[in-house]
Amino acid sequence: MINVAIIGVSGYAGGEAARILSQHPEVEVTFASSESNAGKPLSAAYPGLTGTRAGRLICHGSDMEKAADTAEVIFLAQESGAAMKAAESLLAKGKKIIDLSADFRLRDASVFETWYKIPHSAPHLLNGSGAATGAVYGLPEWNFEALESAQLVANPGCHVTAALLALLPLLDQSLIETRGIIIDSKTGVSGAGRTKSELIYRFSEMNESMLPYNLGGTHRHIPEIEQNLSDVAGESVVVTFAPHLAPMTRGILSTCYARLKEDAVTAQTITDALRDTYSEEGAPFVIVRNSGDWPSTKDVFGSNFCHLSATVDSRTGSVIIVSAIDNLVKGAAGQAVQNMNLMCGLPETAGLEGGGQWP
Amino acid sequence: MINVAIIGVSGYAGGEAARILSQHPEVEVTFASSESNAGKPLSAAYPGLTGTRAGRLICHGSDMEKAADTAEVIFLAQESGAAMKAAESLLAKGKKIIDLSADFRLRDASVFETWYKIPHSAPHLLNGSGAATGAVYGLPEWNFEALESAQLVANPGCHVTAALLALLPLLDQSLIETRGIIIDSKTGVSGAGRTKSELIYRFSEMNESMLPYNLGGTHRHIPEIEQNLSDVAGESVVVTFAPHLAPMTRGILSTCYARLKEDAVTAQTITDALRDTYSEEGAPFVIVRNSGDWPSTKDVFGSNFCHLSATVDSRTGSVIIVSAIDNLVKGAAGQAVQNMNLMCGLPETAGLEGGGQWP
Amino acid sequence: MINVAIIGVSGYAGGEAARILSQHPEVEVTFASSESNAGKPLSAAYPGLTGTRAGRLICHGSDMEKAADTAEVIFLAQESGAAMKAAESLLAKGKKIIDLSADFRLRDASVFETWYKIPHSAPHLLNGSGAATGAVYGLPEWNFEALESAQLVANPGCHVTAALLALLPLLDQSLIETRGIIIDSKTGVSGAGRTKSELIYRFSEMNESMLPYNLGGTHRHIPEIEQNLSDVAGESVVVTFAPHLAPMTRGILSTCYARLKEDAVTAQTITDALRDTYSEEGAPFVIVRNSGDWPSTKDVFGSNFCHLSATVDSRTGSVIIVSAIDNLVKGAAGQAVQNMNLMCGLPETAGLEGGGQWP
Amino acid sequence: MINVAIIGVSGYAGGEAARILSQHPEVEVTFASSESNAGKPLSAAYPGLTGTRAGRLICHGSDMEKAADTAEVIFLAQESGAAMKAAESLLAKGKKIIDLSADFRLRDASVFETWYKIPHSAPHLLNGSGAATGAVYGLPEWNFEALESAQLVANPGCHVTAALLALLPLLDQSLIETRGIIIDSKTGVSGAGRTKSELIYRFSEMNESMLPYNLGGTHRHIPEIEQNLSDVAGESVVVTFAPHLAPMTRGILSTCYARLKEDAVTAQTITDALRDTYSEEGAPFVIVRNSGDWPSTKDVFGSNFCHLSATVDSRTGSVIIVSAIDNLVKGAAGQAVQNMNLMCGLPETAGLEGGGQWP
Repeated sequence: MINVAIIGVSGYAGGEAARILSQHPEVEVTFASSESNAGKPLSAAYPGLTGTRAGRLICHGSDMEKAADTAEVIFLAQESGAAMKAAESLLAKGKKIIDLSADFRLRDASVFETWYKIPHSAPHLLNGSGAATGAVYGLPEWNFEALESAQLVANPGCHVTAALLALLPLLDQSLIETRGIIIDSKTGVSGAGRTKSELIYRFSEMNESMLPYNLGGTHRHIPEIEQNLSDVAGESVVVTFAPHLAPMTRGILSTCYARLKEDAVTAQTITDALRDTYSEEGAPFVIVRNSGDWPSTKDVFGSNFCHLSATVDSRTGSVIIVSAIDNLVKGAAGQAVQNMNLMCGLPETAGLEGGGQWP
Repeated sequence: MINVAIIGVSGYAGGEAARILSQHPEVEVTFASSESNAGKPLSAAYPGLTGTRAGRLICHGSDMEKAADTAEVIFLAQESGAAMKAAESLLAKGKKIIDLSADFRLRDASVFETWYKIPHSAPHLLNGSGAATGAVYGLPEWNFEALESAQLVANPGCHVTAALLALLPLLDQSLIETRGIIIDSKTGVSGAGRTKSELIYRFSEMNESMLPYNLGGTHRHIPEIEQNLSDVAGESVVVTFAPHLAPMTRGILSTCYARLKEDAVTAQTITDALRDTYSEEGAPFVIVRNSGDWPSTKDVFGSNFCHLSATVDSRTGSVIIVSAIDNLVKGAAGQAVQNMNLMCGLPETAGLEGGGQWP
Repeated sequence: MINVAIIGVSGYAGGEAARILSQHPEVEVTFASSESNAGKPLSAAYPGLTGTRAGRLICHGSDMEKAADTAEVIFLAQESGAAMKAAESLLAKGKKIIDLSADFRLRDASVFETWYKIPHSAPHLLNGSGAATGAVYGLPEWNFEALESAQLVANPGCHVTAALLALLPLLDQSLIETRGIIIDSKTGVSGAGRTKSELIYRFSEMNESMLPYNLGGTHRHIPEIEQNLSDVAGESVVVTFAPHLAPMTRGILSTCYARLKEDAVTAQTITDALRDTYSEEGAPFVIVRNSGDWPSTKDVFGSNFCHLSATVDSRTGSVIIVSAIDNLVKGAAGQAVQNMNLMCGLPETAGLEGGGQWP
Repeated sequence: MINVAIIGVSGYAGGEAARILSQHPEVEVTFASSESNAGKPLSAAYPGLTGTRAGRLICHGSDMEKAADTAEVIFLAQESGAAMKAAESLLAKGKKIIDLSADFRLRDASVFETWYKIPHSAPHLLNGSGAATGAVYGLPEWNFEALESAQLVANPGCHVTAALLALLPLLDQSLIETRGIIIDSKTGVSGAGRTKSELIYRFSEMNESMLPYNLGGTHRHIPEIEQNLSDVAGESVVVTFAPHLAPMTRGILSTCYARLKEDAVTAQTITDALRDTYSEEGAPFVIVRNSGDWPSTKDVFGSNFCHLSATVDSRTGSVIIVSAIDNLVKGAAGQAVQNMNLMCGLPETAGLEGGGQWP
């Protein structure tokens, strides 16, 4: 059994990690922290976990020493700015870290500081720093080998995961132009986290409401998307990213638009390209559906799967790829567990085999 | 008082028309038809109308003679294919017609037949036919004068209304390219109408679900959007249109993307262009909000307003305009009443003054 | 035109009052106050009111002098404790007051203090005090005449309105026992008001959730229900009241259980009793439906109607009456306007004629 | 590994059984039938199962021979009337049966026929018939031992499970009167099953709606509730049962009202009685919460748990017990698996350890 600690367990991502890990056949959660629930069982924060292994976890304060004493893998599920302070000493103790915040996702500290408005205190650990313990970007479908030997994993953002899984294959196979990519992404309200208290997150204000936010190139997921698209494209990619809130709890649906390089490309070409990239064995959580068999967020509710389907609009020379994930699973805690599996030499799907809950 | 008949009153658009018209200060609904509720009061189809003027309306079968005998204005709220059969004889009797179906929205019968898969039996009455009684396209903000003397009005499609109000000003003022326009439109489930019984429209299957439909240039609103954008642009405009279902009852949020002609254009330029087009007096139902003050579908729930806000993404040289309407009001019955007001010389806002219901 | 002031206009009840009053044919809202939006138009708090008469109202601070200077009728829509301080001086100026808080609903100051945990500073104005300006309980279906001459009206609680309209006729006609009455009431989340920020009111926590609150005789609506039932029964009535939150924005559905006095009573007897009480002319907002034709909250969404339907369970000798209202309309602002109509000699239904919005 | 067949796998209960069983560590689903999806994988009916063991199941027609050839345990998840025809021959082959329909829940064939309006073709197999292979009622918390040796299990109704778990302890310990019990039960829309196509089950009609159905002693769960309450009470118990639809997909919240036998009984007495009945070891899926810590349906979303909490209203001498379950898990497929575990000598919680999914 692998001993795991979760720092920040009472947030949505941390709680989801606890739920998944407590049913993982090879894992024992030995430490969990939540400042607001210190001294109480996790079921105090999530009554639905009462009577389960996860619910009986006693929450501690954010005591990294204690976490490190009990666990060999540490999930950091806090706000941006915390992981960069904690990582070095944990790595020095030989711990494996999966950071669900944005601290290690970008390669360039100055880009991080521009978008996140806080200084980066551990630039030497950034993704791609070249250090043995430098962060590895945790998108398993594209970083499988590096993740197997990673000590520090930067778990991708939720919108980012949905967009990258859709677009990377097409850039990789030079099927689309690198200019003019548009990502119209719709997320459930849980994407805002558990602590935000603005009016818009209230049931009475959000129900029957659909609205955009952070339009115009201002969302922090933009540099993360562009960094990864550019890597695969081999040139700088700039995207238009438009996030929206939908009146639902979970789920992200990203509708991605791009211009085809060649007019002769059909929906079948695109579908084949997606299937070449994501084989059943190589990418067990990515399902490429036939063109026209559109995925819904409900298809992935509660599961670690990403469903993709694409079509070509020959009238406009464009391709549309639709990507559906559960923002808290493949978009956060599930992908973190998938990364842990790779880091620890476990089967990639361990603890994550379940499908979407329906209805 | 103006006597009005509603044909197809038990559908969502017809029912909404009855609800609005029964509170209209200058209107008396004298005839309503619903095959499935013939002989019963409208409250049998909509129990919430019990005790109101609308609820007491007795539904008849689709007897156009009788409708014409009692009313001078006829609302046709049936499936496509019905209005083209009924229009001529009603016009011959001097009746004013507002058709909420697609029968008279397109100018070219062959385009209609390509997209709707039925022959057009009244091509001489099409929008733009030049006949004195030819259909006028019922988008008051752009067709005000023609509507004042119209006998037959083709009420626009719901997605179309949201998209046109956002994009027409920018094409009119040559601010955006005519190529590369993308419309990502999210609609509430009522857009499917009341009679569709597919699984996806069930509560248990649609709740917590967000999904696209009719992607790849296949939705019937495309030729209608393009016809109107092309008219104003003065050249052929081809768009990518991607409709989505959102887990809500009412509302359309259209996120429209276009490429700027000139880099120097700012969000303020766009906002000013929208405000120039839609003044408070000239377009009382279009609200242009400051850039960044994004509209939600909830802001227009139950009202005839369209809320617009725009921004520029200078990183990509693109503009994003967001348009929110209630699909059953400004996207159907409310706009039909607005058209009626113009046709009958009433104040444009009569019966439609109410704002969005909140919460 | 009657000049009206609304104190506390940015809360849900105050905002709904503004929405209704701004479409009232005989009313001009001349003053509105909202501490949190002072100096801004009401559309800042409710963007959906932009472009309407209500949205253009400039919010002031809670300046009662100014309110009194401009208006002859004052709607007080604040938290409990405020109205009791403001009432006397407004009454002295000859103003008519409709208080939407609980300050004047109970007749006995000590009962008020027990349940509301604050001292009552104006016991001489309590409902039933006998003073010429003493509060009149604002349930028009049962207090019509007193309301016509009232200066100060205590607008009923939302759950209370639903329960009283269902149960009063049966107690009045001695059809049910006064012991053993149970009211299981389900409310939409807006019932909690706009300012509460507890986790349970967040979309992500409330969606897909149904739960009780304040069980065991602890909800403040209990003494209000019992006072009114006892009055009509002519003896002390004690009820079990169990409120629940349902995952919807608006609406109250109260399922009321009582023991029949005589076994021979049928569903038809009960339905007849309800219809005798609520005639179409005498109670234009109460709809008595046939037994088995159950009302839903959606039937009254956005309307001032109360729908009732009853059945008898002869196996258990009990009657079940189901009552549906919109908590913000008949349960708050709509009923307040209905009371204003009576106080001002206007038609009872003025400004309130619309039915439930569907879908 | 235990081989299991599921008959009726494309319904909600059958699909949920497939989802749970495909993650059960001791089970192999070897056969699944669905007339409407015969020849296709189960993922055709539930796209969210694509890529999982459950999703790859090929659906057959309802071939009981084939089911029996491959499996030792058969889940029957069809409409009432089917299981009574299939049971005898499966039992003759030594198969274990868990029937999720109502066919074997009642002990008296004439009672069955009265409520279900179809003749019973296998009365000798009814629950309590005394035959070695007679049905055992599948409420594990109350029938543990009999289930360990059962061949045919009648899986309880969803509302019934919620109500019995709440009320049985209090009748068992003679704390409440047997007269005057009222069960006000709120269910998510999935309780209606997947095939019903009435308007009320559409998203646009059900969203924002709360309504009762089958009031007045007409719901088929009544005889099932009364049979089981009467057994434990040792005398005939007659209840008032009022089911309601709530605008959510899953979940049942049953609010149960009863009269206390003695005034001195407190909330703590009741809570203790519930805890005595449901110990952590003896009833691992029943969580008794402190009085006032009210459960919500969200607490049990997707889990096999039942959460209970109770209070006493000393003003009325009554007790209120609130019971929350997921109608498709503890109310159907999860409880069926729990029963299978007992029948097969597996740990009671195998495959069912997960808590409620939150948010």
